[in-house]
Formats: sequence, C-alpha cells, structure tokens
Amino acid sequence: MTESDSEMAFTNLEQVRVVMVHTSHPGNIGAAARAMKTMGFRHLVLVQPRDFPSATATAMASGATDLLDSAIVVETLQEAIADCALVVGASARSRTLPWPLVNPREMAQQVLSMPDNSQVALVLGRERSGLTNDELACCHCHVNIPANPDYSSLNVASAVQVLTYELRMSSQASQDKPKPHWGVPWDQPPASAGQLESLFQHWERVLVDIDFLNPNNPRTLMSKVRRLILRAHPDEVEANILRGMLSHVDKHLRKP
Amino acid sequence: MTESDSEMAFTNLEQVRVVMVHTSHPGNIGAAARAMKTMGFRHLVLVQPRDFPSATATAMASGATDLLDSAIVVETLQEAIADCALVVGASARSRTLPWPLVNPREMAQQVLSMPDNSQVALVLGRERSGLTNDELACCHCHVNIPANPDYSSLNVASAVQVLTYELRMSSQASQDKPKPHWGVPWDQPPASAGQLESLFQHWERVLVDIDFLNPNNPRTLMSKVRRLILRAHPDEVEANILRGMLSHVDKHLRKP
Repeated sequence: MTESDSEMAFTNLEQVRVVMVHTSHPGNIGAAARAMKTMGFRHLVLVQPRDFPSATATAMASGATDLLDSAIVVETLQEAIADCALVVGASARSRTLPWPLVNPREMAQQVLSMPDNSQVALVLGRERSGLTNDELACCHCHVNIPANPDYSSLNVASAVQVLTYELRMSSQASQDKPKPHWGVPWDQPPASAGQLESLFQHWERVLVDIDFLNPNNPRTLMSKVRRLILRAHPDEVEANILRGMLSHVDKHLRKP
Repeated sequence: MTESDSEMAFTNLEQVRVVMVHTSHPGNIGAAARAMKTMGFRHLVLVQPRDFPSATATAMASGATDLLDSAIVVETLQEAIADCALVVGASARSRTLPWPLVNPREMAQQVLSMPDNSQVALVLGRERSGLTNDELACCHCHVNIPANPDYSSLNVASAVQVLTYELRMSSQASQDKPKPHWGVPWDQPPASAGQLESLFQHWERVLVDIDFLNPNNPRTLMSKVRRLILRAHPDEVEANILRGMLSHVDKHLRKP
C-alpha cells in the first residue's frame, strides 16, 4: 500500500469528529489529538473538559498541537453533535436497556456507508465512568472495543487510537466502494442529531399532554422511543413527518 | 458479543509476546503493558530498557502492573525472540531493501494461521528511530500501521494498542458465529407482522382524525411511516408503546 493509496478514501472521513465528554486529565486530550492526527483526523470537540487549554495536553499532543488549537470547547453533548447524521458512543458496559451495539470494524463500515457529506461523531466519555445513560441515549449505536473481560480499562486516548485506526484501515480495505447504508441510494439526507433531539423533546411534551408519560415516573419510556427511532436512521423528511404529526396532535388537544 | 465468546479463540494468542527494544521513556513501557492487558496479552520482553523498573512505568500501567512484574529484561533482540516461529517487526518507513510488509490486519491473519503452540513476537523499536536495519532483518515480516503520511508518529504504546487490538479483533472475527441482529442479545421478541399491521392501521386512523392525513389524497405518507418503523425492527414492547400512544391520543381527541 503506497502513501498515495492511503489517502484515497478519506474524503468523507474528514467529516468525522471526535467528541470527548468531561475529560478529567488534559494529558488524555493531548494524547487523543496525537492519535487522531496519526490516523488523518483533525476535528476534536471537547464537552466541558476539566482543564483545557493545558500545558500537559500540549506536551502529550507532540506534533498534533494544531488539533488542540482548533479544538472546539462546548457546554453540552447536544451542541457537539447537533449537525451529525450518525452519532456513535463508546461504551464499555452492556446496559440494562439493550441498544444497537457494534464492534470497531462494524462501526467503520457504518461510517463508510453514510451518504456523502454526512457529519459523524465518535463520542468518548469520562476516564472513570464513560458516558452516562442519557448521553448514550443520544447515540444511534454504541461501539464496544473488544477487550479482556478481566481488564477492559482502555485509556481513553487508546480508545481514540483504536477507533480512528479502524476507520482508516477499513476505509483503505474497502477499495470497492462501501454499499450505501440501507443497500440502496437514498433520496433524502439523514436527519441530524439536533433535528432528532427537537423531535424527541416535542414527542416527550406530547406524551405528557396525553397522559401517556408521567413526568414524575418516566421510567425508560423516552429511551425506548429514542432507541426505536434512532435504529431506523430517519431521513429529514421522515423526521419532519413525525414532527408534523406531533404538531397536529398538539393543535387538536388545544381545540375547545 | 458476550464476554465468554470473547475469550474463545485466545488459546494461541497466549503465545504472542510484545518485545520493546531500547525504550527510552518508562511511561511508554507502562502504557504498553496496560494496552496489552486490555487486549488479553501478558508477555512483555524488554531489550535494554533505559529506565526499568520505574515508578513512572508503574503509574502508567494502571491496573496492568502484573505485566511489568513478570516482564523479562534481556540484553539483545536475539535473546528476546530466539524461540519464536514468527517475528513481526513494526516499521514506519519503507526500507531500501524491500521486505515482506503487511498491514495490522494481515499481520493478525499471519499470526492466527501459525501452527498451534508457535511462539510469536511483535517487535517495537525506539520512540524516535524505531528498529535498526539489523533488527528489522531479524523479522519474518514487517508490519506497518497505516497512518497519515503528513504525521505518522504513533506513540509506541499506541502502536502496541493497535497491533494487539487487531489480533484480538481478527481472532474474534474468525469465529464467525452470527451475531444477534442489533449486536446485543435483545430482551424482547420482535413484533410480528400482524401486530405491526394493526399498529399501522391504528396510526393511519389517528392521522386522519388529527387532520394530518387527507384520506382523499394520502400520497406516500403511510408508506413512509411504515418504511421508517419497519427499518427499526420494533420489538413487542416498542410496538405496544406506539399503540399505547395512539390510544391516548384517541382518548384525548374524544374528550368533551
């Protein structure tokens, strides 16, 4: 494989961002930036990092300080992913509520099968505790790096290295163009995470209004709605249809 | 993928050792030990490490200090690999003398295809300069981690993470037991076509009642709803949730 080959399929991997949520140790941010750059990625988004910018991050980034300079710091995960058509959350544990789960290689296939110009987020959680259930419920699917069950604690920058490596490697391995996500070319662009978030919030309000959801005892109802809809990867028109239905329910509830 | 599955093919990966040659920074030895252990490897051999044992190595190893305790320190690469049937050297550059070169995935295939009980060495060089030509000439083949041609300087522990990940991942992929549909065992049975048909019919009635669907000009609306929901492969509980929502909308529409 020559170096020129190695850049062939990467036009759309430019659209992949790494989102690090509530990172405690700035050294991990720097090491993640280095890992990303070695694999040809450059968009780093930090959600409430504890200590950034930081000399430690800069030292650990080695030759990748440009990624730290251009890193975007935001307050919420929602801001970090709002324009993304595919959001993949790194998850070490199996959760009470099953959620679509892929390994890094399958994750890469999903990313590569997205329509052109789709923005994609790889979301990594806190060093000790990973992503919360609420954060994981914002993701279309979860990616689990297969690890030693007796010691599965990958460093967060190592996880970034593995996931970005897998994207680069899989992108090169698939010289044949990856098939589109649902096996046929789609006529509409995928809905963005921000669009879907508004949809879910609207949906939740309506469920309260029709006495289907008890806000004092919500249980996993909205998680199940999110999971179902995210599994289907709605396109923009479909998301608008659902919004439209909710608006019409609203309107009829308010009729005298 | 269950945790017990994940250990199935690893009998012969036990025979893989990581050999680090002339490592300068003890932190990299510790981080490499951690990376190895997360992927289920435990045999670490150090050729003339500059500073080992070391408190820095121990700190970076996190929960993998057992690998440091059992690490073998030797004087020469030859001692480290003498009993190995396959020696793979990590190489960033292409050399003057062409040598069999594999990517990490091909490396894993080679390792997995070795006869049982073959000892295998993955050899990693110095942080700055890698392996010398003489050291590379001790290897059956070289492995190159595909990297950004403009910035290919993977940290040595990150390289260990990628190579051991690839061994673990490829070993699991070769099991080819079909995975459950969404990658995790699901806690509910899939909804039946009959259940879904009732759901869609109910849905359609409600859409007419809320003036969202014009029965005289239905266009493709219900087809889009069907397509979206069917793509998500609802389970029985999810189908019931959707039915429940529709019933509650019904009830509120009929309120005086």
